[in-house]
Amino acid sequence: MTDAVVDLNADLAEGFGRWTLTDDEALLTVVSSANIACGFHAGDPATIRRVCDRAAERGVAIGAHVSYRDLAGFGRRAMDVPADELADEITYQIGALEVFARAAGTKVAYVKPHGALYNRVVADKEQAVAVVAGIRRADPVLPVLCLPGSALLAEAEKTGLPGVAEAFVDRAYTAAGTLVPRGIPGAVITDPEQVARRAVTLATQGRTTTPDGEPVHVRARSLCLHGDTPGAVDLARTVRAALRGAGVGVEAFA
Amino acid sequence: MTDAVVDLNADLAEGFGRWTLTDDEALLTVVSSANIACGFHAGDPATIRRVCDRAAERGVAIGAHVSYRDLAGFGRRAMDVPADELADEITYQIGALEVFARAAGTKVAYVKPHGALYNRVVADKEQAVAVVAGIRRADPVLPVLCLPGSALLAEAEKTGLPGVAEAFVDRAYTAAGTLVPRGIPGAVITDPEQVARRAVTLATQGRTTTPDGEPVHVRARSLCLHGDTPGAVDLARTVRAALRGAGVGVEAFA
Amino acid sequence: MTDAVVDLNADLAEGFGRWTLTDDEALLTVVSSANIACGFHAGDPATIRRVCDRAAERGVAIGAHVSYRDLAGFGRRAMDVPADELADEITYQIGALEVFARAAGTKVAYVKPHGALYNRVVADKEQAVAVVAGIRRADPVLPVLCLPGSALLAEAEKTGLPGVAEAFVDRAYTAAGTLVPRGIPGAVITDPEQVARRAVTLATQGRTTTPDGEPVHVRARSLCLHGDTPGAVDLARTVRAALRGAGVGVEAFA
Amino acid sequence: MTDAVVDLNADLAEGFGRWTLTDDEALLTVVSSANIACGFHAGDPATIRRVCDRAAERGVAIGAHVSYRDLAGFGRRAMDVPADELADEITYQIGALEVFARAAGTKVAYVKPHGALYNRVVADKEQAVAVVAGIRRADPVLPVLCLPGSALLAEAEKTGLPGVAEAFVDRAYTAAGTLVPRGIPGAVITDPEQVARRAVTLATQGRTTTPDGEPVHVRARSLCLHGDTPGAVDLARTVRAALRGAGVGVEAFA
Repeated sequence: MTDAVVDLNADLAEGFGRWTLTDDEALLTVVSSANIACGFHAGDPATIRRVCDRAAERGVAIGAHVSYRDLAGFGRRAMDVPADELADEITYQIGALEVFARAAGTKVAYVKPHGALYNRVVADKEQAVAVVAGIRRADPVLPVLCLPGSALLAEAEKTGLPGVAEAFVDRAYTAAGTLVPRGIPGAVITDPEQVARRAVTLATQGRTTTPDGEPVHVRARSLCLHGDTPGAVDLARTVRAALRGAGVGVEAFA
Repeated sequence: MTDAVVDLNADLAEGFGRWTLTDDEALLTVVSSANIACGFHAGDPATIRRVCDRAAERGVAIGAHVSYRDLAGFGRRAMDVPADELADEITYQIGALEVFARAAGTKVAYVKPHGALYNRVVADKEQAVAVVAGIRRADPVLPVLCLPGSALLAEAEKTGLPGVAEAFVDRAYTAAGTLVPRGIPGAVITDPEQVARRAVTLATQGRTTTPDGEPVHVRARSLCLHGDTPGAVDLARTVRAALRGAGVGVEAFA
Repeated sequence: MTDAVVDLNADLAEGFGRWTLTDDEALLTVVSSANIACGFHAGDPATIRRVCDRAAERGVAIGAHVSYRDLAGFGRRAMDVPADELADEITYQIGALEVFARAAGTKVAYVKPHGALYNRVVADKEQAVAVVAGIRRADPVLPVLCLPGSALLAEAEKTGLPGVAEAFVDRAYTAAGTLVPRGIPGAVITDPEQVARRAVTLATQGRTTTPDGEPVHVRARSLCLHGDTPGAVDLARTVRAALRGAGVGVEAFA
Repeated sequence: MTDAVVDLNADLAEGFGRWTLTDDEALLTVVSSANIACGFHAGDPATIRRVCDRAAERGVAIGAHVSYRDLAGFGRRAMDVPADELADEITYQIGALEVFARAAGTKVAYVKPHGALYNRVVADKEQAVAVVAGIRRADPVLPVLCLPGSALLAEAEKTGLPGVAEAFVDRAYTAAGTLVPRGIPGAVITDPEQVARRAVTLATQGRTTTPDGEPVHVRARSLCLHGDTPGAVDLARTVRAALRGAGVGVEAFA
């Protein structure tokens, strides 16, 4: 028995117009927090509205999944956006999402950067400061979701934005507690049962393993699930069932 | 002496990134209401933020100048957007502007459609209903600025959104009170003194003239000035001075 | 036995960046002509290049599937684009495709408008003239694929562009030889065997039926298959097999 | 008296739809080579067509001014585009321009990267290789214009593309022959007479100066003029007149 509680987050609303990517309806039955695309890497207004409405009905927390302006690259192209412009682009995206969240009877509960911007603000202090400035202009107490130890969480917390740490259930970690890069053998775990066990260990004991199986301490209030791969929904359900089986509550942090 | 009061509105923030079109700083010294581009026909986040900040400092009301999604055509290409999608696109744009207005210490005070969408909702009931639905989702009491007698004002008022009528100071009207189409001789008045006199007559007596000089009754709470033509700022100043000279107060309606 | 020959065309390359829609690899094993998106409604450069290369390897003819500039609406929003601008946009798209076709050792063999533009130029003479002007600037003898009796084919043939008529294998026709609108019962045929039989009758006898089963004469050198629906590839294979079984050759018209 | 010959190049067609930036008509009376925006940072099809037509009439060489896909940032945001995708984007842009050049009776005579891409390929070998691959797919002998000593020119020449070196008439150089960064005092020369003298010295003697006035050897077949600043056209005319006065011929390199 345990009194552990964890959040499950995934990227949703990653379609655009005619195109869809994520099974938003199904994922909303599994996650407690939905990172919703805001139109810059994905997320047309109709999709945003629909996902906000469903998320609100299900009590799933709505997060602004802010990105570089890059539809053609799906936000996966790192960009040297001047800090002021980047801050403005972040604010714009939060505002565009917020109006739909409010119309659905809820609100934007947190911000998580997407793709190349996420990777960038793990270490790039200038862009981290810009993202924080953009968030604060929208809401000076909005929680920020990112990797523990990232520049973004450090800058967020400096200015009064609550920082929330997340971990990846399907990724191996280095002994230093950082992600093993994708190219390296053992970096990505694909077996659903193994992923589910890692999720439980992360939620109950705050640890995971290196590719060699050595334990690593990784404290995280939220676990990130992937939504855009084949089998993503099944994997997410397996993880959620395993957490429940281990007595872990699944609850939004926000 | 008069106790007449009128609003002066113009389109602002019509740049995008490296491109500028309107002299926003100068126009903000003249108008009482700024129709701010929201990113679909013009208006990048940095421009929006800057214009919202200046408008708030000067006490100029901020309006959402919503458009079809058409940067390449500057929102001047009429589009058959399905009603649901159009409503969602309107909501998105209002939200994106609203967050900057709020950060500037004010709010979005009204909505005015831009370009081809404006022309369309004068008569197209389906799109007018969609625009109203999109506005109401953002704010169920947000005023709407359009031509008197337009489908948009009719639909707005049906649902409880205040409708505000505007007139064009540099355009001749038909005897029926509609705009004389641009191609027709006498449709557009370019002489600044004449335009200024028409503004005063509209504000104090609620009338203007046909191309033949016949008087036409046109009641309008707001007068629209153009901001994107050479001499636009000078013309706007001439109009404002003439109104002041005639004892007419210039005040936002919202 | 028969010496009939028909072309099978389908829309390909309808992804954009991270998003995919059509199973391009599979469809290229079935069709003789590939309508390739050129970047305005779909079709990023990487997808265009890949599909051009595969089409060239398989001897499938490459067509420019030109569209309104409308990624968000997938080219399904009719637009009032000024004629000059529309012509320029058509030329641009053809050029962007042509360089990849040439690099693949082949060429753009025809043009077919997409979505709302297709529907528009069936009857709108002004836009039909603009599309023809845009095509002629790229290549004054490039064939144009559209509905028989359309304004586009009429304008194309007037100026020396070969017009090629296509028919839809899964659609019922009116007695006048036009498509029964989608909303009407019997307008769309979904049973694969029935669709295949219609394809054979179109190819060998130049006729199809009304919703009541009355025969209608529809002469077409090309049959259009849909590529973006579930089961599209299977249906396409069934049609091709039925044509082969009936002794009909499948060959590009261009 | 001299038999020196130099090319003058400037960026043109840098508008987009309603927005204009460069005085294309005037610049075409001064330059011998026009770097024409291809739609990714600027350059809508109508502008491209118009500038190609005028350039062809005047015998000005047409260059493809290829860019990252970044309208909002005007191509000034460096982007980590995967090499394959970057190559495809370059090819696409060249093709889109080429069809208009051909329709104007001429051809794309060279390629010059724009903005952040230009700066990147001065030193980034991977992107330089990608740009070269994208160019070669369009035309295996197309000249490439860039800084002498750049990674781009090195990669171009390795694969058989002629590399053409350019110099900046309004910039100071380091003793090593590289540009003095803009922030540093003396980096940018604004006095038209001084700029004109530098142009003549570059064209006739292949040298310019450091901020301290020390001579630096900089060999360049083309001199770059700026087109998007106030006074750009006057400055360009002053430079051209000074070259003529010194007996230097102004001729496209391509």
